[in-house]
Amino acid sequence: MNRLHETKVKKINSEHNTIVNSKDLTLGEGYFTVIAGPCAVEREDIAVETAIAVEKAGAKIFRSSLFKPRTSPYTYQGYGLEGIEILRRIKQETNLLLETEILSSDHIEELSQEVDIFRVGSRNMDNYELLKAVGRENKPVILKRNMSATLEEFLLAAEYILSVGNENVILCERGIRTFETYTRNTLDILAIPALKELTHLPVIVDPSHSTGKSSLVPAASKAALAAGADGLIVEVHPNPANSYSDGHQSLQISEFEKMMKEIFELAKVLGKKFDIPILT
Amino acid sequence: MNRLHETKVKKINSEHNTIVNSKDLTLGEGYFTVIAGPCAVEREDIAVETAIAVEKAGAKIFRSSLFKPRTSPYTYQGYGLEGIEILRRIKQETNLLLETEILSSDHIEELSQEVDIFRVGSRNMDNYELLKAVGRENKPVILKRNMSATLEEFLLAAEYILSVGNENVILCERGIRTFETYTRNTLDILAIPALKELTHLPVIVDPSHSTGKSSLVPAASKAALAAGADGLIVEVHPNPANSYSDGHQSLQISEFEKMMKEIFELAKVLGKKFDIPILT
Amino acid sequence: MNRLHETKVKKINSEHNTIVNSKDLTLGEGYFTVIAGPCAVEREDIAVETAIAVEKAGAKIFRSSLFKPRTSPYTYQGYGLEGIEILRRIKQETNLLLETEILSSDHIEELSQEVDIFRVGSRNMDNYELLKAVGRENKPVILKRNMSATLEEFLLAAEYILSVGNENVILCERGIRTFETYTRNTLDILAIPALKELTHLPVIVDPSHSTGKSSLVPAASKAALAAGADGLIVEVHPNPANSYSDGHQSLQISEFEKMMKEIFELAKVLGKKFDIPILT
Amino acid sequence: MNRLHETKVKKINSEHNTIVNSKDLTLGEGYFTVIAGPCAVEREDIAVETAIAVEKAGAKIFRSSLFKPRTSPYTYQGYGLEGIEILRRIKQETNLLLETEILSSDHIEELSQEVDIFRVGSRNMDNYELLKAVGRENKPVILKRNMSATLEEFLLAAEYILSVGNENVILCERGIRTFETYTRNTLDILAIPALKELTHLPVIVDPSHSTGKSSLVPAASKAALAAGADGLIVEVHPNPANSYSDGHQSLQISEFEKMMKEIFELAKVLGKKFDIPILT
Repeated sequence: MNRLHETKVKKINSEHNTIVNSKDLTLGEGYFTVIAGPCAVEREDIAVETAIAVEKAGAKIFRSSLFKPRTSPYTYQGYGLEGIEILRRIKQETNLLLETEILSSDHIEELSQEVDIFRVGSRNMDNYELLKAVGRENKPVILKRNMSATLEEFLLAAEYILSVGNENVILCERGIRTFETYTRNTLDILAIPALKELTHLPVIVDPSHSTGKSSLVPAASKAALAAGADGLIVEVHPNPANSYSDGHQSLQISEFEKMMKEIFELAKVLGKKFDIPILT
Repeated sequence: MNRLHETKVKKINSEHNTIVNSKDLTLGEGYFTVIAGPCAVEREDIAVETAIAVEKAGAKIFRSSLFKPRTSPYTYQGYGLEGIEILRRIKQETNLLLETEILSSDHIEELSQEVDIFRVGSRNMDNYELLKAVGRENKPVILKRNMSATLEEFLLAAEYILSVGNENVILCERGIRTFETYTRNTLDILAIPALKELTHLPVIVDPSHSTGKSSLVPAASKAALAAGADGLIVEVHPNPANSYSDGHQSLQISEFEKMMKEIFELAKVLGKKFDIPILT
Repeated sequence: MNRLHETKVKKINSEHNTIVNSKDLTLGEGYFTVIAGPCAVEREDIAVETAIAVEKAGAKIFRSSLFKPRTSPYTYQGYGLEGIEILRRIKQETNLLLETEILSSDHIEELSQEVDIFRVGSRNMDNYELLKAVGRENKPVILKRNMSATLEEFLLAAEYILSVGNENVILCERGIRTFETYTRNTLDILAIPALKELTHLPVIVDPSHSTGKSSLVPAASKAALAAGADGLIVEVHPNPANSYSDGHQSLQISEFEKMMKEIFELAKVLGKKFDIPILT
Repeated sequence: MNRLHETKVKKINSEHNTIVNSKDLTLGEGYFTVIAGPCAVEREDIAVETAIAVEKAGAKIFRSSLFKPRTSPYTYQGYGLEGIEILRRIKQETNLLLETEILSSDHIEELSQEVDIFRVGSRNMDNYELLKAVGRENKPVILKRNMSATLEEFLLAAEYILSVGNENVILCERGIRTFETYTRNTLDILAIPALKELTHLPVIVDPSHSTGKSSLVPAASKAALAAGADGLIVEVHPNPANSYSDGHQSLQISEFEKMMKEIFELAKVLGKKFDIPILT
């Protein structure tokens, strides 16, 4: 980890922890924050229904992907900028903050007006031009680890954002690529305590992409919490079987509600705070 | 997972769970069992001191490795059969059950007289001759996953033990080999719920070899419990810095005590039982 | 490989092979084409010296990277667009074609005027916005495989370029990420014949990034040729020890000359053609 | 590679190369030696037919596996010691040397009488008790790399054989386990020149297990030769479709003959010798 020497991401001492604030959000510093929503925003009614349900269950931020980078050019690529209308509607109906994946610096200005948090996906972790562009905005950035990035490379990618003046970076472990095929990826659970040793930035986990199977999401989520994560980004869909993408890894609303109750109980024992009035 | 068709390891329905019994041990079926001890038994006084301490802290089984398979032929290879005297002493001083790694079928008969549980290490997961030999003994077997074994291969290796008539197999996830180098291995936390879907056998985790760093062991242990594991096998040493092998990943006794208290609290919320009177 | 169904990258029959033409270049169809040059264009005199030397030794295309994506934001990032002057000079001094890495669609227009072939690096293999932008130019594109991309994902990334109307794609295997650390990456030599089964596109190999050690580059290059590759992209530097980046993997000019002679002899036995008059 | 310090496997200088001799075999030192035969010896007539054919095509050693370690206990496990009769017959009919996989030290004595070379498979690379037992025999040993072994671990496993006094060890690269699934394993072609830098032992390649597809075997074999390997161990079967195991990766006899001719031409250019009178 020599290359972390003299970086801004490096932890100075055990007290050194970045707290990400945005409106009434406090992420890090003992809070456990849940981001939830469909893999991609597809239809207004489904998005709104999901948003209302995940807020009620304890989520604080809505996963609202308008652009979906897909391995094949011929699969569903997302709603695009026209979906911004749907985001406005969700802000009217709920108090959720909005986060969205950013694929191109050309979209930053327009998305910035409605979205509270930007997400850079794992495919773009090494897209340094995008990291610098998104870092120059005055908004928190969720940076997902590339499937084959070491922790050092992950932190140096985050450094591209910090180096342009934005310290509000949330690291997201989402599974790494290994030989195991039963799960979509291998959730690197040790990345959580390891990153906590190396950096002051908060760490969340994506249990949906790491497992690729909704049946494994609750176990992955509880393990992440127990290992010290600051939050989750979970895929939830009212009817996963009819989802345009990644339905097999999305929780149904009732499954999400059940999991959130278990997480809430676990968080209490682990000394984590939820800042959701409805649950405390 | 086609090759699991018509195997004895395959789970038939959600109620189908093997409970491993040995003397007063109940492993599986809602119990959380901790195996602890030094990486290798080196000296009688240290072994006895460790055994008394880990029993007091809630461990049920003593990790008592007499033979150490080492990558280099020139590093410490363990005490060998002469260490059996030390095991006898531990049985006098504590109520711990004893488990030990078996490297050769030539040692089975002699070890069988003192040891309650055999362990086949990850290096020997594919040593089918040894699996069959150890399976023919009437004792529980802990089978550690090879660093590059898929879950299907892991279960088919277990099948070698079940195929000779021994159903008392405890699967142990101990980290897989990936590109990440900050940790010694990558703990495949999803293996726990995945194996619970595929097989009726209990699953434990080795947080010491998977992390390779004592600072990460508590997080790994709590994550394993939260993900549904039935127990742990943890390295503990009164003075890790002076250990002949793997000292950097061994917990000190005080660290182990602290971790066990946290695990006990967590287990209660997760509905797991400890069968240690001292703690309940 | 189901997702290749109805793609433009898919091979229809054994005769179906794309030949990439640009000026007097014929790549594919039995030719073996060598691209060579420094990791990054640093200084005009060094670049020109290298260009003249590699042309003399049998290279057909000059590796002329002006932008260097680097893991850390604080290491040398390349010359940038000002380096275009140097490229003009090389075109005056040699008959080499020029290829360069493209990091941002903002640079396409300006680079297009001087450069014959674009390269998309492994970090940007999944940057689909960039793939489509570069595909819309009427120039051949070298697409490097991401370190953790399967062959199917690699081909589907290429499909993003073909889907916008550009069939002149050259696939480049440059090593994948595994647990082995003696080499920088693991050269997936089987990717060459495997891709030849799956697609009609030509395949070249980067022996410099895959090995990370100049001592291994000749063996990697000869293996690539023997396995059926259509060419190489090799790092050469007059004084690797003084290179700003990746010097340890660059061949000295004399090493490159020696290797080219061996490759030329080997190519003859393997029925490959060189279109370099000087050598035939 | 610190752990290679003061080992017997370590290369002292560039001239330091072990030559393995057995009867009229010279392996290493510029010779290219081909071992060929069926995955497992199944029937006497097929074994004899294959032996005669591969000898005629230029093979020097017969692959004669009597014991097959299989992932599932319910698949074909090989002929066992009764197959020794078949080996005697092959020695009558051909001048081939015989090599066989050894799974248990219990079989060494009986096999030693008929077999010229022992092979330790990749599953047993870490079975140190077996390595020492086989090393004590006065016969060359082929040691296959474990699917997840680093080069350093591979060499330290070889050291177990050298440490008991046997220097006649032949290292065999047979593919490592990665995320890529199109091929059965990823042939680590760079392991060949890398091992040549690190050790004086000869290095051969198994193109059959590394590819898992007979269509890729010729490319893998030629690449191995070009990268500096000292030989091959190839699966050949008169009727692969009817083979009990691994038929999809076995070459038909005519395919083997064709490949041997190409290899012979290539070997000449690369300065390698064949010690087969029929071909020179």
